[in-house]
Amino acid sequence: MPTELPDSEYRSRLSEVRGKLSNTDADAAVWFSATSIHYVSGFEHVQTERPVALAVTEDRIEITVPRLEIERVETVDRIDDVHQYFDYPQGKPIATAAAMLEGLGADSVAVDSDGAPGVMGYEGPSLSEYVDVESQSWVPRMRWEKTDAEIELIQESANWANLAHRYLADYAEEGAHPATVSQQASMEASRAMLDTLGDRFTENVRGTGPARAGFISADETALPHGHTPNRRLERGDVLITGASANVDGYNSELERTMFIGEVSDEQEHYFDLMLEAQDIAIDALGPGVPLSAVDEQVWEFFEEQHITDLAQHHVGHNIGLDGHEPPYIDKGWGDYDYVGENDDEMAPGQVYTIEPGIYTENEGYRHSDTIAITEDGTEWLTYFPRDLASNVISE
Amino acid sequence: MPTELPDSEYRSRLSEVRGKLSNTDADAAVWFSATSIHYVSGFEHVQTERPVALAVTEDRIEITVPRLEIERVETVDRIDDVHQYFDYPQGKPIATAAAMLEGLGADSVAVDSDGAPGVMGYEGPSLSEYVDVESQSWVPRMRWEKTDAEIELIQESANWANLAHRYLADYAEEGAHPATVSQQASMEASRAMLDTLGDRFTENVRGTGPARAGFISADETALPHGHTPNRRLERGDVLITGASANVDGYNSELERTMFIGEVSDEQEHYFDLMLEAQDIAIDALGPGVPLSAVDEQVWEFFEEQHITDLAQHHVGHNIGLDGHEPPYIDKGWGDYDYVGENDDEMAPGQVYTIEPGIYTENEGYRHSDTIAITEDGTEWLTYFPRDLASNVISE
Repeated sequence: MPTELPDSEYRSRLSEVRGKLSNTDADAAVWFSATSIHYVSGFEHVQTERPVALAVTEDRIEITVPRLEIERVETVDRIDDVHQYFDYPQGKPIATAAAMLEGLGADSVAVDSDGAPGVMGYEGPSLSEYVDVESQSWVPRMRWEKTDAEIELIQESANWANLAHRYLADYAEEGAHPATVSQQASMEASRAMLDTLGDRFTENVRGTGPARAGFISADETALPHGHTPNRRLERGDVLITGASANVDGYNSELERTMFIGEVSDEQEHYFDLMLEAQDIAIDALGPGVPLSAVDEQVWEFFEEQHITDLAQHHVGHNIGLDGHEPPYIDKGWGDYDYVGENDDEMAPGQVYTIEPGIYTENEGYRHSDTIAITEDGTEWLTYFPRDLASNVISE
Repeated sequence: MPTELPDSEYRSRLSEVRGKLSNTDADAAVWFSATSIHYVSGFEHVQTERPVALAVTEDRIEITVPRLEIERVETVDRIDDVHQYFDYPQGKPIATAAAMLEGLGADSVAVDSDGAPGVMGYEGPSLSEYVDVESQSWVPRMRWEKTDAEIELIQESANWANLAHRYLADYAEEGAHPATVSQQASMEASRAMLDTLGDRFTENVRGTGPARAGFISADETALPHGHTPNRRLERGDVLITGASANVDGYNSELERTMFIGEVSDEQEHYFDLMLEAQDIAIDALGPGVPLSAVDEQVWEFFEEQHITDLAQHHVGHNIGLDGHEPPYIDKGWGDYDYVGENDDEMAPGQVYTIEPGIYTENEGYRHSDTIAITEDGTEWLTYFPRDLASNVISE
């Protein structure tokens, strides 16, 4: 059970970043994005109005943090030096980061953004008021392809998501309260995960548990981003579920269309169509396959079935440190001006959610599975049964 | 029990926005921020890689959304017209928004950002590739002062937070598992809230409940942003708790320093200092008071007590639709270049968390209360007891 990314991964990422840096005129690379800072350095924090700036040069890694992050950042051995400001705005975070860069002899830097993002109302100066900046977006692109070690963490996430989803299926029944079922399943799966992993659990959540399962039901399933209704479950209700777990920051995605007690002919009809669409998408996956082609094959199936008006979104997305990440499995991906020339095809290490959906006026139907692209095919990471019989909850 | 913002609030916001628009050369105001769109129009969505653009002219409100938001946005009567693209990137979201602006006769617009934010890896064109843009940040500033109706929602949030916190205090005991206690309290408070409000509950969460309580314990309390440790509670442990509830998008903040079973002399010493610091800050609040002065008074107290090295952050922040919002109660607020000339003093309608903290090497001490500034003083919205005896959990 891998529960933490090994140090070798960070060494490899740093080496890649330094390689890219050496191809620029910049003296240092700088990141303000919490996710990118986590990816490059292993230091994890919540992005707030208090900026954090990571600087990487040929031979140094330094960071600027608010006072309240000092103790945690100092546990990250690969960071050579920590600079601090007390708080925002009194501590002048960007000036502190600029002083760090001056100490590193960096007059010119390659940045993920020219100053800190405007999270929680943050406002402040551009870094270019202090040093020459050029723009880089190396990390978001590096994150597309996961290493074996990252995929193992996503697999571990999928394992715990499966348990959370099993609890959810156990507690969902006629008369049950949706939010309570979701919260009970999340609580029990989190407890099982924490008690199983013990000291090996990497703490990174706050005031809640690491595993979660939930669902929307009835009318709300007609909306891909529906809310949990304050209405008890009734016989014949359709559910669209979702489960995941946080494993050292990595996520998986498991969703199922389920039914309470009975399934009408109409529901079975749409369920079967949804399942066939998902099969078509999954069969189409593989290294070298254009992302747009996968979405197009599902669309052609919807056209054949005359149900394009019941589709509301594309097939899926990459997943990892974020719940949604590029590339997106979308008909327009290959043509999009912002997609690099060689970035239109699936590649080994990319991990996709496959989740074509069908939405009638009153109900929705969607499974989502998390599947890795390998050198010669695909590898399923989620494994809760997909067939109708396994997804009907009977007394 | 107010559970939803009345329509009159949106009329008033729109009127204010249109007043600001009339003072510019722009034909329309445009927002890409989900929170700002919610604030201006009442349409609530999760910000993802699929851009949403709201346009307000002198007499029209129109919006561009992805296909999957159509049904929900159409329930918002005050929006005159809805434009859709199928999905990102195939549907060309910014081109769709530009076509909407062309239909509105808007050649020149005042925008919150020049294109959609880079959430979940979104990339796309600037809006200025299509129309003339000037920058505006009206809504973040409008949100500083809450109306009576908004404060009633924050009060309602504080009421449910109090219940969640009471459950948390009931379940926390020697041997209990922190994540499980937090999740149990959140589940029961959410269920009570949902069953109390019934049809009056405004659904806006997904796969979980609207109320939450949690805590960090022992060593982790030494970090203001500590994580929940995977270690059962022991006699003598200190907890720093947190509770809130989502009421039509509004939040409150309630935090308490609590103890399991017994309190050492050292713990009592630091608890008393923390409570006195909080009292000093609360006594200093009021309309016309410089924000920096409140933080300075607490800092002077820390200096008198020779504990400035145990402080890790400023006194607090405004709260509302976001958990942290400007203005920040910080010594540097009044001098900061990005704070407007008349924006350095507290004003009626601002709602602050008051949470000076003290952090030793091994433990932290912090209460947080949510307090509104009124015309002639302050109004407490949180009300869980603050004294030591009420915060010691005994068998």
